[in-house]
This record gives sequence, structure tokens and C-alpha cells, in this order.
Amino acid sequence: MADKASASSAVFRPHFKTHQSVGVGKWFKESGIEAITVSSLSMANEFADAGWNDITIAFPVNMRELEGYNKLSKKIDLNLLVDSAEVIDGLSSRLDSGTGIFLEIDTGYGRSGIHFSEEDKIRNIIAAIRKSGLQFKGFLTHSGDTYSAKSPDEIKMIYTKSISILEVLKNNYPNTIISVGDTPSCSTVHDLSQADELRPGNFVYYDLMQFYLGSCTIKDIAVSVACPVTGIYPERNEIVIYGGAVHLSKEFLDKDGKFFGLVVKYTDEGWTAPIAATRLSSLSQEHGLISTTPGFLKTLSHGDLLGVLPVHSCLTANLLRENTLII
Amino acid sequence: MADKASASSAVFRPHFKTHQSVGVGKWFKESGIEAITVSSLSMANEFADAGWNDITIAFPVNMRELEGYNKLSKKIDLNLLVDSAEVIDGLSSRLDSGTGIFLEIDTGYGRSGIHFSEEDKIRNIIAAIRKSGLQFKGFLTHSGDTYSAKSPDEIKMIYTKSISILEVLKNNYPNTIISVGDTPSCSTVHDLSQADELRPGNFVYYDLMQFYLGSCTIKDIAVSVACPVTGIYPERNEIVIYGGAVHLSKEFLDKDGKFFGLVVKYTDEGWTAPIAATRLSSLSQEHGLISTTPGFLKTLSHGDLLGVLPVHSCLTANLLRENTLII
Repeated sequence: MADKASASSAVFRPHFKTHQSVGVGKWFKESGIEAITVSSLSMANEFADAGWNDITIAFPVNMRELEGYNKLSKKIDLNLLVDSAEVIDGLSSRLDSGTGIFLEIDTGYGRSGIHFSEEDKIRNIIAAIRKSGLQFKGFLTHSGDTYSAKSPDEIKMIYTKSISILEVLKNNYPNTIISVGDTPSCSTVHDLSQADELRPGNFVYYDLMQFYLGSCTIKDIAVSVACPVTGIYPERNEIVIYGGAVHLSKEFLDKDGKFFGLVVKYTDEGWTAPIAATRLSSLSQEHGLISTTPGFLKTLSHGDLLGVLPVHSCLTANLLRENTLII
Repeated sequence: MADKASASSAVFRPHFKTHQSVGVGKWFKESGIEAITVSSLSMANEFADAGWNDITIAFPVNMRELEGYNKLSKKIDLNLLVDSAEVIDGLSSRLDSGTGIFLEIDTGYGRSGIHFSEEDKIRNIIAAIRKSGLQFKGFLTHSGDTYSAKSPDEIKMIYTKSISILEVLKNNYPNTIISVGDTPSCSTVHDLSQADELRPGNFVYYDLMQFYLGSCTIKDIAVSVACPVTGIYPERNEIVIYGGAVHLSKEFLDKDGKFFGLVVKYTDEGWTAPIAATRLSSLSQEHGLISTTPGFLKTLSHGDLLGVLPVHSCLTANLLRENTLII
């Protein structure tokens, strides 16, 4: 991903919310990355303490945390995200003037950000930011609508629409930058050169959701959850593992039925391809129920470790932060 | 719930997996509770360290943790759960002989446990437990199928079926006990006197899932997640809060559409009833998107705190363990 950003002449500012790991962060530093993205002040503080000096908190400003933003802004280059004139009024004169401000634009996802069609609002907020003395950096979006795409071509169409909207804004407000960066777009779109900055996060591990979107191959998935077998039920071709919602999250996919993960076996080199006709079919707090074949079931004993490829690695890694073995 | 157990002459052994809190545990101790249930060895160790001396780990034995079971069994009265002769073979002579063993019975839920119809297997495992020198305590079930019930009457039917199955087993194997305890059954069934032991857990907080099952009233829900407002979008009657899947979990309900929580406002006495026509309609890692009315939206400012009543308090409390304010 760093090479791709470089080939597109874009700044690579990876999102660290997926791994939230100082150790994994070091790999990025070793690859020459200097700027990162996080999604909360507490995460920003953690990585600032670990030596990161250029951090964007890509979550709309939380008015309850102004004191924390100011403290951090005195130590590092900090960028915040706003989408409201009310918030700019509240920040003005209370926030360290060195703080960078991105305007979040909603290019179609409909979560946070000002909708791109609201030209007056956009103009007024930018005027307010500039008047406040804060540093207006440019336009940021998260095209999360790519996660609902039915094909890589649809991801590319969503990206193209989104980047075109941001380019118009950049032309209207010169000397600003465009920051984009959902993992599906950054993985499937070849030429990202219209963007000034890329902020993908999930790609560090990928997961089954990304695999089914077409963002990665199954071999690109770089995280699995090691779960001991605690129940073997040949009469119903099911296995119970110690591995539930508190380890994997309840995120699921629905492809010929709901499932919460695929199952692999560990080898000396890592893990196998997913076991055929075998799925994590149900999850409760700490139990995982795997549906499988008589053939695979026969190979198992109580206490064997199975690996689960998660549906959504960000949530899984967050749940298992303190139990992650980085190889 | 303690009074109900007492009225039914059943031992109350509440499940502590919902709160996982030493502080909340003290309330139970003050109510005279001496025996508890947990779902992992690590949880058992935590509560043993906090002074609990009688603990059942209501999760099938994990063969990778025998050393830990033995250490704990030397300190406290420990009960484990098995559903396999293979596991008993593995435990025999390796597990401290003072350890109590429950046989988990599947009365219809289909997760873990030996299916009640497998009489030969049940007989063989009990013989193996007794031969091993371990202390055979009795029959334990979790009727999680009550969570799919369409009405309190259906919960009662599932409970009646389940307890009847266990009574037959108890009659066939005298001097054993029957341990049951899903929250829907324990909340809706009036007379629980056929059970020797009750292990509900969720009732300590309840949640929206229990409310819609008919286990509790909305006022019984004793946990909410305080989330700051970070986005207000009058053009689409939506609010964004800092409160996402890493705080609430992705558990949802589907009643006239999917939702991940209901919204309350804080008052001096606690919180209000759920705001009308207002739902947490979508969740990503840290963003929560609330659909609401123009009227409610107008009352809000950036930085206001809203409360979210969670769909599944066990998962929410697990995610926010370190950020829980107990009042």
C-alpha cells in the first residue's frame, strides 16, 4: 500500500484503528511512514507517546475533549475533523491555533460530514475556519459506501464519484488537499493519483469482508484467532470452540446463510486455506459453533487449536488487543 | 432474583460473565450469595482473587487449561463442565480429585452438551466420571433456545420441556443436582422449584433483547452507554454519536427494521424513557448513527451526552469493562 501511494504521488497516512498496536506501527515506521490516522483522542495519545508526530483524528471533533486536543496539539502536528459551523464557533479561540482542520465531506455514504451538495454551508464553514485562525487543511471523506458494493467495478465507480466531488472542491478552494482512504477503494483502484492523501487502515490485516468485496485474496488475510476445540458432536457435524462474540465480534456475512468466520488449521508456516464446507455458523458470548463435514470432524480432538479468519478484523483486533501474537 | 431462588428453594449461583465486575459482585455478596458461575478460567481466577470460594466454570473443559484448573481447585470449590467421555479420559488422574464435575445436557438448544436422547452416552460418561474419582455433581443446561422465543409463554414452554428432561435424569441418577439458568426462563417462569440451582447472569443489567423477549420492563434496564453528540444533520434527521461497535457490539434487533440501541437522556435521577421514534440505526467501529425526529434533533448541541440502552448488555459491559461507572 505504501508503494501504491508512492506511485500515485499521494501522502500515505495509514489508519491505525485496525491494529491499535505500537508494535505493528513500527513496521510502518520502518517503511518510511511518518503520518498516521486514528479515530479517537485516546488512540492519538497512545501513538504520540510511541513517537508519532503527525496524527489526524479522523472522527468529528468531540466538544468534550478540547482540553485533550490542546495538550496534544502542543506536542505534535495534530489534525482534527469538523463538519459544522457550530463546532467551529465552539473551537474558535479555545483551540491551539497550530491545529490543522479538515472539513469532512459526505460524498454519498451518509454517515458524518457535510453533504457535498450543500455549497453554502461548505463556504460558510471554510470562512469560519479561516477566520478562527485555525489551519484549514482541506477536504476529507470516508467512502464507506464501498462496503456495500456488489463488485470491484462498483467500488471503482463509487471511488470515481467521490474523488471527482472532492476535486471540484479543491479547485474551488485552492491550496487545500484531498484526503480519502477506505480500504476497498485503495485496494481495487489502480490509479489513486487524484488523491493527495490516502488513509486506509483495514488492509494491514484484511478480513473475510474484504475478501468477499474483492479487495484481497484469501491469502492476504493476515490475522486469525486461535481457538481451542471444546466440543465435538459427530451426530450433528458440529464443533464448539472457545471463541465467541467477545473475541471475534458479532459481525457476520450472509452468503448462502449467515456466518461469523472461516476455519483454518495451523501449520509450521502459518495456516492452511479455509477448510472446505466448514463455517463458524453461530456465536454466543464465548462459544463458537462450527458446522463442518464428517471427514474434518474426525481429524479433531478436544484441545486442538483451530484458527478463525474473522469477518471484520478491526473489531476482532480491538477485542483481542491484549492477546495478540505478532509474528 | 435472589428472593425468587429462595422462594423456589434453589441455590442461587448467578453468572458473573455479564458484569465481570468485582464491584458489582460485592452487591451479590451483601445479599448473601456465596456461589457463582463464570465462563472462563481467567474469570474464575479473577473472582477467586476477589474472595469468591465456590465457582462453576460453565463452559466445557478446555483441555489446554488443566494446569490452571488444578491450581484453582486447590484454593476454592471449583466445578467444571464436561460433555464427552474423551475429555473425562483426559482429565482422569490429571485433575485434582476434589474438583466437581457437571455433565452438560443439551435439552434442545443445540450448542454444547450431550443431547438428552443419547442415553447410552450419558450413562457411559457418568460411569467414567465416577470411576475417575472426580466428584460428579449433576446435570447442567443452558436453554439458550429461549432467546428465540416469540412470547413469554413460549419461554415457559421451553423451560418446562428442559426442566422435565433434567428431572428424568435426576431420577435415574439419584443424589445429583439440576442446574439451569437462562435469564428469560428465570425472569418469566414463576415457580422454579424443580431446579436445584439457578445460574442467570444477564438479569443484573437486562437489555433491549430481554425487554423484547418479555423478560423485563424498559425501566429494569440498568445499564446505558453515555455517548457524546458529534454530528447533527437536520436535513436527514440523523445524529452521529461517538459510540460504535467497539463500545456497544454489533448485536442488533430487527423490529420494523434493524437497530442497535434505543436512546435516552440523562437526568439527575438517572435517565428518561427511550426517546420516541429515535433509534441507533447503524454502527461502524466508533460512529453511531441515530435516526430521530426534527423535534428531538432541535434540542441537541454538539457535545451533549446521550445514553444508549444496549441490545445485549453482556457484550457491551465486556467492551466497556474499564470505563464503567457503577452508581
